[in-house]
Amino acid sequence: MSRRPAVAALGGGHGLFASLQALQYVTDQITAIVTVADDGGSSGRLREEFDILPPGDLRMALAALCDPSEWGLQWRDALQHRFAGDGPLGGHPLGNLVIASLWDLLGDPVAGLDLVGRLVEARGRVLPMAVEPVRIEAQVRGADPEEPEQVSTVTGQVSVATTLGDVLSVGLYPDPPRPCIEALDAVGDADWVVLGPGSWFTSVIPHLLVPDLRDALVHTKARRLLTLNVTMHTGETAGYTAADHLEVLAAHAPELHLDVVLADPSVVTDSGDQLRDAAQSLGATVVFTQVADSDAPGTHDPLRLAAAYRDIFEL
Amino acid sequence: MSRRPAVAALGGGHGLFASLQALQYVTDQITAIVTVADDGGSSGRLREEFDILPPGDLRMALAALCDPSEWGLQWRDALQHRFAGDGPLGGHPLGNLVIASLWDLLGDPVAGLDLVGRLVEARGRVLPMAVEPVRIEAQVRGADPEEPEQVSTVTGQVSVATTLGDVLSVGLYPDPPRPCIEALDAVGDADWVVLGPGSWFTSVIPHLLVPDLRDALVHTKARRLLTLNVTMHTGETAGYTAADHLEVLAAHAPELHLDVVLADPSVVTDSGDQLRDAAQSLGATVVFTQVADSDAPGTHDPLRLAAAYRDIFEL
Repeated sequence: MSRRPAVAALGGGHGLFASLQALQYVTDQITAIVTVADDGGSSGRLREEFDILPPGDLRMALAALCDPSEWGLQWRDALQHRFAGDGPLGGHPLGNLVIASLWDLLGDPVAGLDLVGRLVEARGRVLPMAVEPVRIEAQVRGADPEEPEQVSTVTGQVSVATTLGDVLSVGLYPDPPRPCIEALDAVGDADWVVLGPGSWFTSVIPHLLVPDLRDALVHTKARRLLTLNVTMHTGETAGYTAADHLEVLAAHAPELHLDVVLADPSVVTDSGDQLRDAAQSLGATVVFTQVADSDAPGTHDPLRLAAAYRDIFEL
Repeated sequence: MSRRPAVAALGGGHGLFASLQALQYVTDQITAIVTVADDGGSSGRLREEFDILPPGDLRMALAALCDPSEWGLQWRDALQHRFAGDGPLGGHPLGNLVIASLWDLLGDPVAGLDLVGRLVEARGRVLPMAVEPVRIEAQVRGADPEEPEQVSTVTGQVSVATTLGDVLSVGLYPDPPRPCIEALDAVGDADWVVLGPGSWFTSVIPHLLVPDLRDALVHTKARRLLTLNVTMHTGETAGYTAADHLEVLAAHAPELHLDVVLADPSVVTDSGDQLRDAAQSLGATVVFTQVADSDAPGTHDPLRLAAAYRDIFEL
């Protein structure tokens, strides 16, 4: 059996969660690099109260990587558990509060995440894509349905993810945000970098807007895999084909070369030629494999995704 | 060296914290049994939001028992760390939130405390004196300074601890509260039971108002030690001599016999005869030993208290 590859997985939210679940079947060298643009829910409330990195997606990644021992699972469940009701604590997952408190105590986002990683005996490391919170600013056509052709700026992850208009491009504020050195190193040292799946404009593309991180992705010796979503037309990418997803990604990082694009066959309605062409222009071949969860439409099946990752990594 | 004694330490707040710190020098079989009447600060806010046991004094006891390893100290510091500011989370120690969340998740106060105990690798067990939150109701003379002779009911730990009047007696609501079975067992199985130090009416006497716990204290084969405070005239016991402390304790549990009363010499202004007489009427001898912290007036010195405990346990 060949050496297990070092993998840096970039994303956020449920997409990254699924990717991390799958990767654990394939390797024991995982670094998750997580968006820090969330401004909704518990993370948004914590940003407002303390002006800190949004901990929610980082917590999710740690939960995905927890060791399936009694101890690991118990603390994973605790970190994921939300306070009930709509009082001052209602809705906060405990893990967000643990992470926020450790950040304040230790004064270092990476040290805090590493300690929570030890708590759940995480099988990998979880890092933020930047060490300061960022805001997503999107150029959107038709954000106001009364003015369908007008392009305006929509600010904040929640607003962008739920806009009624067409997202054309995204940027970050501050620009540039301070990168996470450990994340740059992980990309540089990886054998494979995995981008996606996830909300395209708010979880997948933001990493490319941190200049040092984009440079690391461009210059790493690692091979680059892009995992497409299993449902194309969700929220912020309504109307986008699979090929469009690649094109808009490339538009945000023209110098980024890809090696493999992983797509569930269900995401293309034609023969797949359009997607193959779009991939080829980025230097990538398309691997069509069923990775969607038959029982939970719109989500990846962790074992199928694991099998696809293994096959791709051994190419 | 003789077998190390099993000790059940009853109290709350800073008094119990000091006692637990000292006991660790003397034995490795410690059970802390903690008041659950607090209605102030973070604990009070959590009671208000979730109608749960006040976690603050339980957290303090766990912090006192934490293993002094890098891991234990790191998590102790995290659990003790308070959120900053005066927003929705401001002032909450992280540990209170961890305990509250585990209680909700596990549905069992003892299981939640045991898990936090494992987190800090606690050198002992921490249990609540009752498994439902209680309110202290005190009979107070002169609560209203305009009516110095009138006796009225003052409700709540904070109000009782800060009343301007003289506390005459305390009761609990609900009456009786549901006891903690594991706490009853710990008292039954102990070699020594230690009561105090601590706020007399709100941290030391409440245990005696849980009928099953009082019965366990009365009937245990353990020897009973009462540790007096090193400052007599604080808040709720302004005007009480050391002997008065014993008498008011006895008034709340007339059938309770004591074996030893530990007093710092500074707490008696006369020859100590009054205190000796009051102790004798409870069946106890008084051990006078310097246990006050010379540098921090009003608090016990953990090492001096440890030495006193060792000498008493070996009597």
